[in-house]
Amino acid sequence: MTSLRSTKADKGRLPAAASGTAPAVILVEPQLAENIGTTARAMMNCGLSDLRLVDPKEDWLSDRALAASSGAERILERAQRFTTTEEALADREVVYATTARRREMVKQVMTARAAAAHMRDEVAGGRRVGLLFGRERSGLTNHEVALANIVIEVPLNPEHSSLNLAQAVLVVGYEWFQAAYEGPQSMTTLNRARLADKETLEGLFQHLEEELVICGFLRNDEKRPSMVINIRNMLQRAELTEQEVRTLHGIVKELRYGRRPDRPKRQPGYSADD
Amino acid sequence: MTSLRSTKADKGRLPAAASGTAPAVILVEPQLAENIGTTARAMMNCGLSDLRLVDPKEDWLSDRALAASSGAERILERAQRFTTTEEALADREVVYATTARRREMVKQVMTARAAAAHMRDEVAGGRRVGLLFGRERSGLTNHEVALANIVIEVPLNPEHSSLNLAQAVLVVGYEWFQAAYEGPQSMTTLNRARLADKETLEGLFQHLEEELVICGFLRNDEKRPSMVINIRNMLQRAELTEQEVRTLHGIVKELRYGRRPDRPKRQPGYSADD
Repeated sequence: MTSLRSTKADKGRLPAAASGTAPAVILVEPQLAENIGTTARAMMNCGLSDLRLVDPKEDWLSDRALAASSGAERILERAQRFTTTEEALADREVVYATTARRREMVKQVMTARAAAAHMRDEVAGGRRVGLLFGRERSGLTNHEVALANIVIEVPLNPEHSSLNLAQAVLVVGYEWFQAAYEGPQSMTTLNRARLADKETLEGLFQHLEEELVICGFLRNDEKRPSMVINIRNMLQRAELTEQEVRTLHGIVKELRYGRRPDRPKRQPGYSADD
Repeated sequence: MTSLRSTKADKGRLPAAASGTAPAVILVEPQLAENIGTTARAMMNCGLSDLRLVDPKEDWLSDRALAASSGAERILERAQRFTTTEEALADREVVYATTARRREMVKQVMTARAAAAHMRDEVAGGRRVGLLFGRERSGLTNHEVALANIVIEVPLNPEHSSLNLAQAVLVVGYEWFQAAYEGPQSMTTLNRARLADKETLEGLFQHLEEELVICGFLRNDEKRPSMVINIRNMLQRAELTEQEVRTLHGIVKELRYGRRPDRPKRQPGYSADD
């Protein structure tokens, strides 16, 4: 193991979000090389790149660590080793400590979500932020928690709230990433397709209803209006694309006429080319 | 491997949130026993318990799987095995498929957060929900994605968005749990302590300021008002408890007088017992 690797080196393939202002991840005495590797992977997922190891018990550049990092080798290569937690935090201004159990301390406690919004504000204000994670088995000591400004407690099943190291990093990093996500929360993937406009839908409804009258499905005059409304609602709900409307015109036509001799050249009320 | 284990058995240690209405987690052809185990652990963290395995490639009750589950053995013991994805989804009404890459399909896509709110609504309405996760290496086929109502895409670093299987389950399960979390997002842990009221704080300010005048720190009459305001703001910001105010009274007293012979029996403006 080497000590105090530079973080000033070429950023190369590291994510854009992982500039010098993104939070540093500090692991206190991690026991297993795999956990350091999977932590690096989780950091890469979340746009974090500054990994600091306090007295790690295994080599973070071992084959096991590199394999577990699954593409985040650069984060391991540029990780810094420190002897004490105080040294690892020395250049940080605001530190968040993740703990599984409540301490007998008077301390600001936040969920991972609230902490993410808080740290985005701090980083936007130019603050240097650190995220402190404890040992796999025993977590952080009270002395180490007291080095932090804020404690993060992740709301989880109270009967089984203990996350493994990389999963804790993932949850906090995930929230960090979400706090800057500005894309849609919900959308329909349209690709090259466009949703059918109401005139196009009306053409399909009329085509279908005319054929359903002819074939006998809508033979009951009394029930017909409510059945028509049910059918229209069902098809409205499907949010059909123009291509899907063309497909349904074809399906109605083929079901109705197939290869029968009375098949018309063109459907009434249906003017699409296909 | 046995097939179609019952889910009707005694729920025993399983979390309260994991009733029959919580979403089922369906893993399609998981390759590694460890990943099934860590998935069970992530489910336990998030109050999920209905695990379904479609043609798993390793034994989900092997020592490796059980060790990786880290306390969630019951979820593995009660997991159900299915031959096809269709069978595993047969009793589900609404299915969410998690994918890393966008498909050439017209499909509703949601973030994990939006999907969690959506599935909470569905479950509240009595719907049976399933969460579909693909193979470690190749994910879900287009045919499998088409079995789902909604696709979940987790917003992550676009250059490295691939999560491992248990981490994907954790993120979706974490959001499922957060969507029902009603506790505070941010709080100060008070334990048995109470925040000092303003009268108590005023007593501390006056005690400190009187001693600072006597000892000479506030000797400059012109600068004194702004220095007093700065000191008061600094102490206000600390959100002191009653006990901490008592401690600070003691610190001021000892710093000022220590074992000096002029040490008064009682501080001016300080009426606390300690």
